[in-house]
Amino acid sequence: MTGLPLSPDELEAALRAIGAERYHNLHPFHRALHDGRLTKGQVQAWALNRYYYQCRIPAKDATLLARLPTAELRREWRRRLVDHDGDAPGTGGVARWLKLTDGVGLDRAYVESLEGLLPATRFAVDAYVDFVRDRSILEAIASSLTELFSPTIISERVAGMLHHYDFVTPETLAYFQPRLTQAPRDSDFALAYVREHARTIAEQKAVLDALTFKCAVLWSMLDALDYAYVVPGRIPPGAFTPEPA
Amino acid sequence: MTGLPLSPDELEAALRAIGAERYHNLHPFHRALHDGRLTKGQVQAWALNRYYYQCRIPAKDATLLARLPTAELRREWRRRLVDHDGDAPGTGGVARWLKLTDGVGLDRAYVESLEGLLPATRFAVDAYVDFVRDRSILEAIASSLTELFSPTIISERVAGMLHHYDFVTPETLAYFQPRLTQAPRDSDFALAYVREHARTIAEQKAVLDALTFKCAVLWSMLDALDYAYVVPGRIPPGAFTPEPA
Repeated sequence: MTGLPLSPDELEAALRAIGAERYHNLHPFHRALHDGRLTKGQVQAWALNRYYYQCRIPAKDATLLARLPTAELRREWRRRLVDHDGDAPGTGGVARWLKLTDGVGLDRAYVESLEGLLPATRFAVDAYVDFVRDRSILEAIASSLTELFSPTIISERVAGMLHHYDFVTPETLAYFQPRLTQAPRDSDFALAYVREHARTIAEQKAVLDALTFKCAVLWSMLDALDYAYVVPGRIPPGAFTPEPA
Repeated sequence: MTGLPLSPDELEAALRAIGAERYHNLHPFHRALHDGRLTKGQVQAWALNRYYYQCRIPAKDATLLARLPTAELRREWRRRLVDHDGDAPGTGGVARWLKLTDGVGLDRAYVESLEGLLPATRFAVDAYVDFVRDRSILEAIASSLTELFSPTIISERVAGMLHHYDFVTPETLAYFQPRLTQAPRDSDFALAYVREHARTIAEQKAVLDALTFKCAVLWSMLDALDYAYVVPGRIPPGAFTPEPA
């Protein structure tokens, strides 16, 4: 990033290199989840905390939607709201995530209350929503590019969890199937937008930093889960405490 | 908190009970720091990350100052800015914290660049600044009440670090001495304000929640340090990596 601006292909390669180094599929907690090395209580803690991310995604998308300048861009981004919030009660990604928390045995009212969240989960997710609210539209769109890497992690997650955990069923994991087509569609758009609009060195640095930031959000969520529930397993005051196995 | 509003004394007791359960002097990382069980690199990681907290405190205080309605309140709160930013270059709490990072062998430009921060540190501290910006003045003032508990932790910290670490000198710890008088003065004011202004059940719940939130900010910073640098010792991508001992 010290010389001329990158070509669109070079910029895409640099974005993909960030994912190859920093996307949370590389995190030890993720591998433990997929390899069946977690207890039911640890899987519950993951599902509970990840719910906060899911339920704030529509707020993140609406914040950006409100700032987009054209109907074309707003229609594109509005599709994400439909994906997450659905068209009727019980539909959409957030509702499907609650099927997952149901499926692993969590009380739905407790999940929705957010009372058991790790504070670090809340701080990381809120940082993401604030980033999208406060930064340029280009940076906000670039921060969604972790979806470039999500089909792989989702495939690993579904196969691994179904294989290893007897308390996980295909219905429990209903959240993930639509994401396998939604995420590539969304990241195709975001990538094309970034390739076209990040022309100057400063703009290109900003989009690379935005993706790095977003990777850090996801990574820090797994750090906090790992610390609280796996190793050393020190649950902070007030956070969800699994029942003894 | 289910019956009548608490009396001021009962409210103070409830606030102190939160500190007794959730203040970060109870965190294993804090105990390891004081007991001399950390390496120089681990102490460096603590000083580096805590610097971000220190350097954002004036922003936090200025945000609240801008919202206070009377000259009397603003003068009171302005004193905190003087404490942290000083009256001349090299004075004030932030400058004294840089003496600490100097003293433990960190490059000052690297510290001030914030490049090596744990993302979790940034998210937690930013959450605190945002809380003070976005919540009621009563909640913002209540969130400063962790200072009720800081003289104890500072005394432990100074004595323990001087005793156990040959790379720590009284000059390195110059930050802490003024805090032993500043913190009680500040928390006396904040406590009196909260005792007087938190009258309804809703107000009292809000101030108790504000202190709980602030304790979670400090606690989660130590969770992240412990996870990254002590146990299991998994440094997230891009964060400060100590030199081999």
